[in-house]
Amino acid sequence: MPEAKFTMNNMIKINFQLSSRPHNYPIYLGENLIENFSNIIDLSGYSSILIITDTNVAKHYLRPLKNSISNNYSGKVFVHIIQAGEVSKQIKVVNELWKKMSGLRLDRGALVINLGGGVVTDIGGFTASTYQRGVSSLNVPTTLEAMVDASIGGKTGINFENLKNYIGSFFQPKSIVIDINTLKTLPIRALRQGYAEVLKHGLIADAQYFRFAASKKLENINNEDLIKIIRRSIEIKTEIVKQDQEEFGHRKLLNFGHTVGHVLESLSQLTKSPLYHGEAIAIGIMAESKISELAGLLTEEDLNDIRERLLYAGLPIKFEIKTKLDIILEKLLSDKKNISGNINWTLLTKIGSANFNIKVDLKLIEKGVKYIL
Amino acid sequence: MPEAKFTMNNMIKINFQLSSRPHNYPIYLGENLIENFSNIIDLSGYSSILIITDTNVAKHYLRPLKNSISNNYSGKVFVHIIQAGEVSKQIKVVNELWKKMSGLRLDRGALVINLGGGVVTDIGGFTASTYQRGVSSLNVPTTLEAMVDASIGGKTGINFENLKNYIGSFFQPKSIVIDINTLKTLPIRALRQGYAEVLKHGLIADAQYFRFAASKKLENINNEDLIKIIRRSIEIKTEIVKQDQEEFGHRKLLNFGHTVGHVLESLSQLTKSPLYHGEAIAIGIMAESKISELAGLLTEEDLNDIRERLLYAGLPIKFEIKTKLDIILEKLLSDKKNISGNINWTLLTKIGSANFNIKVDLKLIEKGVKYIL
Repeated sequence: MPEAKFTMNNMIKINFQLSSRPHNYPIYLGENLIENFSNIIDLSGYSSILIITDTNVAKHYLRPLKNSISNNYSGKVFVHIIQAGEVSKQIKVVNELWKKMSGLRLDRGALVINLGGGVVTDIGGFTASTYQRGVSSLNVPTTLEAMVDASIGGKTGINFENLKNYIGSFFQPKSIVIDINTLKTLPIRALRQGYAEVLKHGLIADAQYFRFAASKKLENINNEDLIKIIRRSIEIKTEIVKQDQEEFGHRKLLNFGHTVGHVLESLSQLTKSPLYHGEAIAIGIMAESKISELAGLLTEEDLNDIRERLLYAGLPIKFEIKTKLDIILEKLLSDKKNISGNINWTLLTKIGSANFNIKVDLKLIEKGVKYIL
Repeated sequence: MPEAKFTMNNMIKINFQLSSRPHNYPIYLGENLIENFSNIIDLSGYSSILIITDTNVAKHYLRPLKNSISNNYSGKVFVHIIQAGEVSKQIKVVNELWKKMSGLRLDRGALVINLGGGVVTDIGGFTASTYQRGVSSLNVPTTLEAMVDASIGGKTGINFENLKNYIGSFFQPKSIVIDINTLKTLPIRALRQGYAEVLKHGLIADAQYFRFAASKKLENINNEDLIKIIRRSIEIKTEIVKQDQEEFGHRKLLNFGHTVGHVLESLSQLTKSPLYHGEAIAIGIMAESKISELAGLLTEEDLNDIRERLLYAGLPIKFEIKTKLDIILEKLLSDKKNISGNINWTLLTKIGSANFNIKVDLKLIEKGVKYIL
């Protein structure tokens, strides 16, 4: 092979055009869906089924789900129960799942059902997306937070060395089955924190929905209103995600409250009284609403309205854990959402409307964070 | 929340329709492309660059690639060198890469360049696909096998507990840059094994190409013919992959020779003289051509023609490692490509044409495997 001098003309360029599979799937929402699971979902095409759930959820909903499946499905059904809590979101747990699945010789025709909160749908979805380059998965969220947020939109992931969701994939489930009865066994604090994402959806996209949701108390909400609220939250989220599945632009709207919120969540996990995800997001919403106001985007009236309504929902608006402003600021700068060290903020322009990729002066960020300390 | 009796009408169904990003990307092929890398690829949009390569390839091509990049790119360029060889295709190595990337705080705007053979593009692609749910990656294959097969088509992966490619993802690179000069430093055995995939592409899709490629000797091939052969092989592969990216149907054509081949490759890795991937595939092609003939799909004349041409290419057609027929058959049945225990074969109907999802009697499989022992 003799050497030749390089010219662009000597080189061949082949264009590789892929038409990806369309990703359309149904989300079912109602009461008693777990007992009726196999009437809703056609399981006949799957070679086997693995249910992934956690120690808390297994107690209540594993048996009714398995019973329903066995009524209409003759293949093998396996179960893997992980420890409840954020601590399970690590590669070790994914490794155990890969080991289980390969040990059982599950093939590409298998179905993984993720029964639980956001931790289960995040881990189970990531495992399903990587086992044999992807087997089908299906989410059965059992917390309000997972119903309106974590189980919807195809983000999967685990934490890596204390960095939240640093490893993961974009992987859409085949379907999502939401049975609101599962909310009955949730402690009120766990239920309430899910409301932070509900209110966020209203704040970024629908003022009327925000005021409607914020006028309800989860303690005594009726099923009709609860379904109405979950449905609208899902509609807002799916409407945004379908325009920008992999978060290069529009999907960043959903990050409102999360830039500061994730930092507070991480910091609180190093203490003996960690915040729930939604609690951290509620405080993050307060900080980022304040930054919106400081940047001249949001009126003081709207800011006060948001604060009152978060309080009415029983959500925290201050970070009660002793920490230094500098520690929060430093962690903010290494957050994964920030390209090249700049923070790209999603900020409110009014209640019901937001913009993304906004840069703000460090002084405003400092003031915004001080506001919640 | 009072209980309500379940009816399908009570349930809400929301249809979630996603329009995935189109995946189109260019593949560049020619001489001296590594030295001219940054003239070909626009790097200006990336926040930083990580080059992943192995101990063998780094010696020859890391410096020219880095030099070319630094001519046109002002961001930071990092390097991670993995141990050369299949042994690196394990989660431990991916973990080290995740650690490196998170330690460097690489963000979603980063670019991963995979410089090396199939092992590097498989590991690097998988790492890129899972770090922060996916950062851009770009392949610079340096072996013939990677140029015509491994680096093309978006399959990434690692082995798991001796199961080949059991963990991975479908993830397309931003581009592929193929510099045939890199083949000059390959030992002849490593070069030759890449020819198995070339001949396979001819066998399944283009008889004329098969005969043209099989008439050449890699020892004295000229650059023009070499580029012609690589180009046609890429065209055949991309034509198939773009119809079925995630291998639910048509893409299975590319598995010809691989059902038996993968088993032989795994078995040989337990010995002191492991086969190269392409060598195992060549023997697999022989076994599966024989099964095609036994099933009445392929003429004896074509079978003999295939054998002669593999021999002429210097590829093995017998599995020389002492083993038992039963061991091979048992491993075949647990291969990941087989749904519910049935083997779905891709078989030749003539030279230049194949079909997939074919079931054959176990006795024919036995005879086919015996043919290569």
